[in-house]
This record gives sequence, C-alpha cells and structure tokens, in this order.
Amino acid sequence: MVAEIVSVGTELLLGQIVDTHAPVMARILAECGIGCTRRVTVGDNWDRLVRTLKEALDRADVLITIGGLGPTVDDLTRDAIAAALGDELETVPEVEARLREFFSSRGISWAESTARQAQKPTSAQLIDNPNGTAPGLFCQKNGKVVIALPGPKGEFDPMAYGPVKEHLSRLQGGGVIHSRVLRIVGMGESGVEEKVRHLMDAENPTVAPYAQTGEVHLRLTAKAANRDEASKMLDPVEAQIRDILGTMVYGIDGMTIEAAVIDMLRERGETVAVAESMTGGELGARLSSTSGSSSSFVGGAIVYTMAAKEAALGVDDHLLKEFGPVSEPVAIALARGAKERFGADYAIGITGNAGPTVDVDNKPVGLLYIAIATPYSIQCHEHRFRGIREDIRRRATQQALTQLRNLLLAVQ
Amino acid sequence: MVAEIVSVGTELLLGQIVDTHAPVMARILAECGIGCTRRVTVGDNWDRLVRTLKEALDRADVLITIGGLGPTVDDLTRDAIAAALGDELETVPEVEARLREFFSSRGISWAESTARQAQKPTSAQLIDNPNGTAPGLFCQKNGKVVIALPGPKGEFDPMAYGPVKEHLSRLQGGGVIHSRVLRIVGMGESGVEEKVRHLMDAENPTVAPYAQTGEVHLRLTAKAANRDEASKMLDPVEAQIRDILGTMVYGIDGMTIEAAVIDMLRERGETVAVAESMTGGELGARLSSTSGSSSSFVGGAIVYTMAAKEAALGVDDHLLKEFGPVSEPVAIALARGAKERFGADYAIGITGNAGPTVDVDNKPVGLLYIAIATPYSIQCHEHRFRGIREDIRRRATQQALTQLRNLLLAVQ
Repeated sequence: MVAEIVSVGTELLLGQIVDTHAPVMARILAECGIGCTRRVTVGDNWDRLVRTLKEALDRADVLITIGGLGPTVDDLTRDAIAAALGDELETVPEVEARLREFFSSRGISWAESTARQAQKPTSAQLIDNPNGTAPGLFCQKNGKVVIALPGPKGEFDPMAYGPVKEHLSRLQGGGVIHSRVLRIVGMGESGVEEKVRHLMDAENPTVAPYAQTGEVHLRLTAKAANRDEASKMLDPVEAQIRDILGTMVYGIDGMTIEAAVIDMLRERGETVAVAESMTGGELGARLSSTSGSSSSFVGGAIVYTMAAKEAALGVDDHLLKEFGPVSEPVAIALARGAKERFGADYAIGITGNAGPTVDVDNKPVGLLYIAIATPYSIQCHEHRFRGIREDIRRRATQQALTQLRNLLLAVQ
Repeated sequence: MVAEIVSVGTELLLGQIVDTHAPVMARILAECGIGCTRRVTVGDNWDRLVRTLKEALDRADVLITIGGLGPTVDDLTRDAIAAALGDELETVPEVEARLREFFSSRGISWAESTARQAQKPTSAQLIDNPNGTAPGLFCQKNGKVVIALPGPKGEFDPMAYGPVKEHLSRLQGGGVIHSRVLRIVGMGESGVEEKVRHLMDAENPTVAPYAQTGEVHLRLTAKAANRDEASKMLDPVEAQIRDILGTMVYGIDGMTIEAAVIDMLRERGETVAVAESMTGGELGARLSSTSGSSSSFVGGAIVYTMAAKEAALGVDDHLLKEFGPVSEPVAIALARGAKERFGADYAIGITGNAGPTVDVDNKPVGLLYIAIATPYSIQCHEHRFRGIREDIRRRATQQALTQLRNLLLAVQ
C-alpha cells in the first residue's frame, strides 16, 4: 500500500510559507507502515488541483490532502476531491447547524461562503474538528482512500495525530516503522555522533543524529510486524546509548527540556521563579507551556528597563550604574531578587544583549549572563551566542533550562 | 513560461527533514517573473525519479531539481536527468582533475563513486560550486531547460541566489512578480473576503486572503516588467482596501501586531507593562521581540500561582477566594497592580484557563479575561477560545495586543 501527499495553497507553492505539515504526515504514514512515494505542492488553481489529485489517485492507494478546506473561494480542495472521485457534494445539516450556532454565539454574521464548510463529497465520512470550523474528510471509493485535513496548525496536528493516524493504522493492518527520539543536551552533534558512531551502521534499528537549537536528537527507527515488537527492538539500543551518554539524555520523543525541568522540580516538591531582562518573558512562557506546571513554576518578573529592575526586584541602582545592566552582578541580583520576592526554591536571572544593535552600555550583541539562585548558593555563567535576535533569545532560554537541570542533577 | 521544482531525497520524502530549499527556489522564480505551478518531492528511487522528471518536462518549460548530486549510490539525479532528456553522460576531465586534487590534498582516498560527480549529461553546462564537490547543471534541449542544484544548504544557497537566479532572469528576459501583504485584525477571513470580494476577481494585481492566528492577511500580487512598476500597480489597490477596512489594516509585509503596538506607544512617548497568569510570559516575549522595544515596554510580572499574584502585584486575597483566579475582578486587579508597580501608562492583565484540564476553580478550558488599565480607565473583556493549550495562549496574547491597539486608536 502506497500513499501520496498533496499540499494545497498558493502561498505554499510560491514559498511564502514553509510546509511543515507534509513532513508530519509523511512520518505518520511511516509509523503506520505505509510507504509514501511522492509529495506534491499545488496552488489554489482548479484545473491543476483536480489534475494533480486524479494523477495521484492513478498511482497511489491512499491520497492525503492538506489545506484548502476553509470558507473562501480560494479553498478548492473539498470540491476538487469530489470532482476527482466523480462524487457530488452534499450539505450535512448537523454541521451547518453547528457552524451557524458557532458564528452567532460569537456575533459574527453568516456569510454564504461559510456554508461550503458544511458540504462533503457523497462518499466521504466527516472527521471531527474540535479546534476549528472545517471538518476533515475520509473517503473510500473504488478501492482508493482519500483523506483531507485542514491547513491551520492547531487543527491539523490534533486531527493528523488522532483520527487520521487511527484510520491509516486500520487500513494497513500490519507492519510498522516505529521511531523513538532521544533528546540530548550538553553536547554538540558531532560530539554525539563520535560517541555513538558504532551504532550508526546498523540497518534495523537505525540510529541518526539531528542538530536542534541547543540540543541534539538521536532518532532510533525499527521496522517490525507491529509497534510493540518494534519498540522492543529499540529498547536495547536506547539502553546502550544511555550507558554512553548518561544524564545528557534528558528525555524521549515529545519531551522538552522545560517539561523535564518541571518534572524534576515536581518530584522534589520544589519551585522556580524567573527574572528576565533580554528574554522578555520567553523563559516564563517555556516553563509554563506544559500543563500542570503551576505546581513548580511560581512566576517571576520581566524587567526590561533599568527602572523595572529596581522597582520589581530591588536591584541596586549602583550595581546598574557601576557594571551596566548586562553584567554578572546584575544577573546575580536579578536571581536573588526573584528568589526572595516570589519565595521560590530556585530563581533564574537572565540579562544580556540580544541585538541587533549594541546597547546603551556598549555590551556586544550575543553577550549574556545567566545566574541561578539555589537554596544553597548562587552561580552565574557568561555566554556568547551568535545569530539573529530570535535565535539568541531562544538559545539563552535553552541554556538557562539546561543550567538549572545540571544544578538539580548535582544537588540530589 | 512556467516552472516546476523537484526535490530529491528519501529523508525529505519521509519527513525526517523539512524542505526549506524548495520555498527559496519558488521565491527566486517569482522574483524572476517565472510562475511555479507545482513542487514535487520524490525519494532516491530510480524509476519514480525518472518518471517524475519526464512528467514535469511534459508540463513545464523549466525544471529545477534540488539534491541527489552527491557521490553515493543514493545520488541519482544527474543520471536521471540524462535519462529524462535522452542524453548520454560524459566525464569532464577538468572537473575530475580538480576533484582528485581536492581529495588528495585532504588525504582522502579516491573512490570510484566520487568520479560520478565529474560527469554531466551531454546537453549540460556545469554551474561552478565553490562550496562543495558536485557542480550544478544547466541543460537546454528541445526548448526545455533543466537546472540541477546540490542539496547541502551551504552549496545550495550561493548557487541559487547567484548563477541560477542569473540564468533564470536571462531566460525570462525581464519581468517580475511582486507581492505585498496587508495585515488585518478585528475581523475574520470570511468577513474580510466579503468586504473586498469585488477586488478578488482581478487578474493583475491579484488579491487573496489568508487566515492567521487572530488576524487575516491580504496578499496583493502584481506582474510587471520590473519591481518598481509592479509596486506602483499595487499602490491603488492597497489604497482601495485601506479605504474599505480603515484602521483594521495594522501594517504591511513583515510587520507584526506587537511591533505595531510598540511603534504607536513610541510615537506617543507612552509605556506598557504586563501582568500574565495563563500566558506565563508569552505576551512580554512578544512585546520585547522587536529590537528597541525597551523604550516602550517596561516589563511586568508573571504571576502563575495565587501567591505570586498577591506577592508581586498586591492582588487581594479575598478577590482570589471570592471570584477565583480566572475572573474579571482578578484580571482588573492584575492590570491595576502592574500599572502601579511598574509605573507604566498602560498595563495588560491576563488570566484564564489554557487547558487541557479544568483548573482548581472549575473554570472551563479556553475561558479568559483580558483587562487593560489606561491613564483614564480600566476595561475588561471576556473571551472563549478553542484549541490546544498552545493555540489558546497564542490567541490570548494576540487578542490582548489587538485590544491595546484599539484603545490607543480610540484615545488619540
């Protein structure tokens, strides 16, 4: 059984946005043991879209479309699937009623174009979309399967990983490709590769490293009759890698460094607060991004200006004047202030220059200080990162989380 | 003249890496005035690759391939292009000599497979690759053009933006496609479409709406002899749309709502502070994401727990107990506390439940309150958003920024 993926949208085709959904869909197909032989991107053009869908249906058993299910005249996928399958379109009254209710509850006037989202090709079942207005489609006709997913990420992801993955597994009914990702901090990609080089020649399971911002991912992939068997094949390889890399492996799969830190704190019954200058709230946003983090993440202060540093955290005016806001003493004062003010066991203070220009106190772009106050001590590290403002801020929060994790590991 | 792009590589096809080169190539084609009608991704499979190239050559005038030019047995693109064009392969002695010298100077032994990189289809000219071993290809035969670029980013980027872009401009003989994006808040995609529907039938310039999180983008695209002329064609269309949508258009192209708000505050010499509960710092991170925001964004408090709300911003214990942390009175107290504590002209307080579970005080997932304290008043709005935690938080910060912008527009 082979599948093709068709991504629909002129803005994708012209490169105005990068297609991250098709790779997700390809990985889901692989996990279900369905080979993906081709991916196509087409624009919002009726003739080319219908032709593309027909050609894909000639070659593949399963056709997956992404995007073009919305309410505007540009959204052609639903109609094009009907045309490619030789289906009519029919309105689903319950969906139309739900859409009307949704719109009126928000005081939005009902546009006739919106009603198109309540239509489906006759051979389609609807896939529920709790996160948006356009349902997905699951069509079976003449031995072919067509699945249509909406483009917005918040709607695509839950539908792809949920009901669509289930449909695909059921279709395949055997043989899977199963992956596990080991997430590593404290070592670069080539360092990790050097240590696990001898495991990278194996064919099943395979081991491959990928560099990420401030971390490295090792992807372990096994082919087997079912997921359990594949998973069992991965276990000894994971164990070998953990023997080699030790605590540098902080988690697997969807785990993030912020979630790993929150988990460690929760297990210890301890809390953390933040005092952010250059990162402006991004560290707090990461620490609070996992559900249930409020038991360990207290909060903190965003002290973007000098006055805020004094007012919110009592940072001494003379420190700011003598050393400048981007300095080790100020980072330490931020961490100490946040720890006291928010009554947390740990507090992280970050100050630096994310660029693109040299700040008032003439500190170079990319220079930053991360201080962590613990129940016993305060430590501070200087870092110099390169890149654009966004990268520097991201690497700063990544480094702060890694530094806190190292402290928690050291003080068991 | 129309072009298609074929990206070659099993790791791309299976979604193990995201294809960022094809979007770059699509944008270059657009800038050269060549329409891109289709993008295809295929794996390292001989039959499917040759078939894909032949089909693309049937439809398009220009075919651009990315990847598969390296030395390994997986690298099939060079041979497949020769097959699709009906060419033989021939060795270019100077390239082979240069490769041999390169390898021996690095002490790497010469593998016979490496010699393949010195081959080219008979109708091809070579495109110099100063950053790697495999040259690019520029083939002209039977009225068709095939251009092949290597996959590694450090080789692809300079070749694409340099000699390949030059080749394409020359083929086209002038002419560009130029776009401008108008960014809109305060109205949904179908609402915007209804208002500008009469402009969407035009063929040059075209007008197309795209939904984003909490905003809508209208893309205006003109074809003309050069960029200046295209830009002048867009001006009257932009003016018409601004007449219709008024202040709902907050900016163009790369402008963001946070940057628009920071600009407005800077012009007025005013400042803003934040008090974030459910968003955990994300609003601060957005307000500080633009360089130079420190003149208008003071900072704020992340008050994730009840204790933090009291300690950092003096929110009354009895408010928290009587109404619960997710309530209008608490949002107002957060905004008032942040305004006083940080001495800002405006302050935004956000409290809500981002999910996925119902919180201690039993408020439903997606319910949130955004209060804004101004020099004259405090206003608070209740919202209910759907989606995953990440979306709800993103929409909350988007809504807060839109609400602040509306207030600033109202109080000139």
